[in-house]
Amino acid sequence: MQALIFDGKLRLDKNHPVPERKPYEVLIRILKAGICRTDLEIVKGYLDFKGILGHEFVGIVEESPDQNLAGKRVVGEINISCGRCIYCLKGMATHCENRSALGIQNKNGVFAEYVSLPIENVHTIPDSVTDDQAVFVEPLAACLQITEQVHITPCKNVAVLGDGNLGLLCAQVLTATGTQVLAVGKHQAKLNTLKQRGIRTCLVGELSRERADFVVECTGSPSGLKEALQIVHPRGTIVLKSTYRGQARINLAPMVIDEITIIGSRCGPFRPAIRLLEKNTIDVLSLISERFPLGKAPQAIQAALGKQTIKVLIDISDR
Amino acid sequence: MQALIFDGKLRLDKNHPVPERKPYEVLIRILKAGICRTDLEIVKGYLDFKGILGHEFVGIVEESPDQNLAGKRVVGEINISCGRCIYCLKGMATHCENRSALGIQNKNGVFAEYVSLPIENVHTIPDSVTDDQAVFVEPLAACLQITEQVHITPCKNVAVLGDGNLGLLCAQVLTATGTQVLAVGKHQAKLNTLKQRGIRTCLVGELSRERADFVVECTGSPSGLKEALQIVHPRGTIVLKSTYRGQARINLAPMVIDEITIIGSRCGPFRPAIRLLEKNTIDVLSLISERFPLGKAPQAIQAALGKQTIKVLIDISDR
Repeated sequence: MQALIFDGKLRLDKNHPVPERKPYEVLIRILKAGICRTDLEIVKGYLDFKGILGHEFVGIVEESPDQNLAGKRVVGEINISCGRCIYCLKGMATHCENRSALGIQNKNGVFAEYVSLPIENVHTIPDSVTDDQAVFVEPLAACLQITEQVHITPCKNVAVLGDGNLGLLCAQVLTATGTQVLAVGKHQAKLNTLKQRGIRTCLVGELSRERADFVVECTGSPSGLKEALQIVHPRGTIVLKSTYRGQARINLAPMVIDEITIIGSRCGPFRPAIRLLEKNTIDVLSLISERFPLGKAPQAIQAALGKQTIKVLIDISDR
Repeated sequence: MQALIFDGKLRLDKNHPVPERKPYEVLIRILKAGICRTDLEIVKGYLDFKGILGHEFVGIVEESPDQNLAGKRVVGEINISCGRCIYCLKGMATHCENRSALGIQNKNGVFAEYVSLPIENVHTIPDSVTDDQAVFVEPLAACLQITEQVHITPCKNVAVLGDGNLGLLCAQVLTATGTQVLAVGKHQAKLNTLKQRGIRTCLVGELSRERADFVVECTGSPSGLKEALQIVHPRGTIVLKSTYRGQARINLAPMVIDEITIIGSRCGPFRPAIRLLEKNTIDVLSLISERFPLGKAPQAIQAALGKQTIKVLIDISDR
C-alpha cells in the first residue's frame, strides 16, 4: 500500500505492507485523514517517532472480529492501552504505562491506505456526519477534554490563545457552553471563521488590560504560557493544550503570588465530539484549507506548515 | 526605635521613627519575629522591596481603635487590602489590586520595635500558645492554604519536596489529615524533625520509582518543579509554594501529555493555624535553630542563610 513514512526524513513509500490485523483488532481502509500540528512537530524531531505518520482519520472497517462492524464507517481513538497497568485499572486508559499512540508512539498511523486498531478504539459515525466532518472528531474530542477536566461555568469568561485548528475548535466548543469567549490569535483571516459565528476575536497585539478567568493555551509555542499568565485573573486557570519540542523559560513567582492553576490537557472523549458534529453545533468545514491525494502527502505536509493554513486533508480512498 | 532596613544594603537603623498609627490601625509592640525565606530572597533583590524587613511576628497591641484589643497578644495577616477593588469585592482580599504586604511590598515590616497594621489584619493568640509558637502562625497558615485550594483526600499520597521551615510544616499539616506523606529533602538532620514524629522521609538522591498523587513543592529552587514533574502521577497535582527570583527552564510537553495540574499557593488562613498550635497538633519548637536580639538582626539574617538552619528568631521585647 501507499504510506507517508517519517524515519528522520519524510518519504512516500509506494510498497508498504498492509498491516496484519491481530485477533482483537479491526482493519480499516482509510477514506480521509487530517494533518495535525503534532505531525508537524514529529517531523521536527518531537517524540522521536519513526513510522507511518497521522492519527486523524475516517475509514471503513474491512475486517473485524465483530461482524456487525464490517463495512461500517468509523473513527478511532489514538491511545492503545494494555488494560492491566495501574492507570488502566483506575480508568485512565489514555495514561496507560505501556501505551502506544497512533502515528505518534510505537504504532503506525493513518497516512496510508490501511490501518489496524483494537476494536475498542473504534467509534461508528452516523450517516448525517460527512467524511470531512468525521476527520475532525479527534481534535474536537481533545477540546472536550477541557470541559471534562475543568469546570468552566457559564458566568465566567474564557480567552483562547492560538488560531490554529485546535484553538478555533476550542473557541467554538466553549462558546457552545454559554461562556463568554475571546479568541486571541495572530491571523485575522483565521479568526474570521469565528467572527462569522459571532465569537469575539482579537489580535495578540491588540489585547487590552482585559483579564480572563480561564485561558486555554493552544498557540503551539513556548510564548503562549507567558501570554496566558499575563491575562489570567488571580486564582484563574490556564489550560495547556500545546505540545511542542523544546523548553520554555518561565518566571514562576507570579504563578505562586497570583495562585494560578495550570492544567495540562491531552486526548478527549470521542462520543460527545461525534454528538456535537451530528447536531451541527460546531462548524469544521470552514477550517479546511487544502486537500491533497495520498500520493502528494509530502506536499500536504508542506502546505500544513503554511502560516495561513488551518487544516489540510489527505484524500485516500472513496467510499 | 531600632529597625532592620533593606535599601539595597542591609543595615540596622537605631533611630527609625515609630510608625504613625492611622485611625483604622493598631500599633503593635513586637515581642518576637521569625526570618522567612522570602526575607532572604528580598535581600537578593526579589520584588525590589525597600524598607523594614520581616512579616512573621507576635506582639502586644499598644494602641487600638477598639479598646478591647489594647494589651492583647496578637499576630497579623500580611496583606493589606483596599476593600474596594474587584478582587476584594469577590472575597479575594489577598489578591487585592492595590494591596501592600508587610515587609514585602510598600509597607514596613516587623524586624523593628513597633509596627502598625489595620485592625482587621490582627488575630489574638490564646494563652496556651507560647510566643515562640505564635511566630509560626503565618507560615503555618500558608501551609493550610494548600488544603483550602486542593482537596487532598486521605487515601491519596503526598510528597513534600524541600526541608526548609515551610516544607517541614507542610509535611506535618498534611500528615495530620490522615494522608500518607513522604518528605523529601537534602538535609538528614532537618528531615529528622519529621522522622521523630513518624513521618516517612527520604533524601532527594534516594528517591526510587515511587510516584505521588500530590507533590507540594517547597524547595525554594527552580529545580523543584522539575523534580516534582518527575514523581507526580499522570493527572496528579503539584502545589507550588516556593517563590524566588529568576526564571525556570521547563519542558512543558510532559505536563500536557501527563495532564498534570500545577497550582500556585501563597498566604493562608490564620484562624485554623492558631487552632492547630493551640491543640499541639503541629510541632514548631523543634524547628527553631537560633535566636538573636534585634541589635544583632544582620547576624540573624546571615545565620538564616546557613544550609543547616531551619528557623531563626529575633527576640525584640519582653511581655
